[in-house]
Amino acid sequence: MPNLSRWIEDAADQVATLPGIGKKTALRLVLHLIRKSPDEVNRFAQAILDAKANIKSCNECHQLSDDVICEICKNPMRNKTSICVVQDIRDVLAVENTGQFNGVYHVLGGLISPMEGVAPSDLNVNSLIDRVQKNLVQEVILALNATMEGETTSFYLYRKLSPFSINISNIARGVAVGGELEYTDEVTLGRSIVHRTPYEMTLKR
Amino acid sequence: MPNLSRWIEDAADQVATLPGIGKKTALRLVLHLIRKSPDEVNRFAQAILDAKANIKSCNECHQLSDDVICEICKNPMRNKTSICVVQDIRDVLAVENTGQFNGVYHVLGGLISPMEGVAPSDLNVNSLIDRVQKNLVQEVILALNATMEGETTSFYLYRKLSPFSINISNIARGVAVGGELEYTDEVTLGRSIVHRTPYEMTLKR
Repeated sequence: MPNLSRWIEDAADQVATLPGIGKKTALRLVLHLIRKSPDEVNRFAQAILDAKANIKSCNECHQLSDDVICEICKNPMRNKTSICVVQDIRDVLAVENTGQFNGVYHVLGGLISPMEGVAPSDLNVNSLIDRVQKNLVQEVILALNATMEGETTSFYLYRKLSPFSINISNIARGVAVGGELEYTDEVTLGRSIVHRTPYEMTLKR
Repeated sequence: MPNLSRWIEDAADQVATLPGIGKKTALRLVLHLIRKSPDEVNRFAQAILDAKANIKSCNECHQLSDDVICEICKNPMRNKTSICVVQDIRDVLAVENTGQFNGVYHVLGGLISPMEGVAPSDLNVNSLIDRVQKNLVQEVILALNATMEGETTSFYLYRKLSPFSINISNIARGVAVGGELEYTDEVTLGRSIVHRTPYEMTLKR
């Protein structure tokens, strides 16, 4: 970019390191930021520094937390015998928002991906096995993305967990609620037929 | 959002104040940021603070600048008799990137918009009149958006500038280069016919 202030360029370069933010958007965001009052800009930068400085990982489930044990693991009302395995903290939020799960979580921190060089040893797999071994876990729900990497990781975990006498389940794949058959891809539609559920379960929503 | 770290939430709230960034994207960006090293996070925050602390507005053209006079206004090779009026600094970059303009700029800092409560007095209009009065300006090119606000502002400036014996022009509106007539809206196509240019000018590109 020609004739642009060095300070603006430096800031835009930094913002452009964020995922999904290109050079143009970064510049737009920086120009918006510096139009704010100095106080507001300080609050903005400080909030990010504070988050980095203060955030911890829950010793139990590896979720990001203010403490060494997160709010969910701390909560005596949650069912500790049921563990929902997810890729990252955003998936914890997604499942929490459904209000359909009262167990605890285990955040893997990624998915197995030979393409991106992510091996099982890079993920929080051993600590999951430990939790299953040490605690009275009855069920592990695999709630990973329905992608190649997600399916691979699910299968890997299934193999690792199958020696234990616990229920291992996969979240249902099928036609989205509100979705139309005509616009559902054939793999998903095929799976929804193979994994059809007794109609009485539909009544329970 | 339930059970989320307070620090993460504070940082996400701050990031969500940026234009075009919603709550979900903000969270994604913050989670990405805190996965970086402390050094990288510091550099990120510092770049924004530095930009805010060091950036000045050019006394001549109101462009953001490292100095009291910007690089373009400082440049003896630029034609000071031709002023291109734009809405903000991003438009300066857009025009610069065309390589078709060798004059200087005047950044209005916005467009007249009764809906958003932006009056001419909120814009850098008086300093434009001053520049035209004091310097030997021969031409003012109005390069504002082809929106209601842009057209209103252009007309306002035209009225303000017409007492001076200078050329006032508007950037051309018409079919985009590479555009097809069939997909061009009728207002634009109509304008492109009314403002048709001698074919020889097309040869000059």
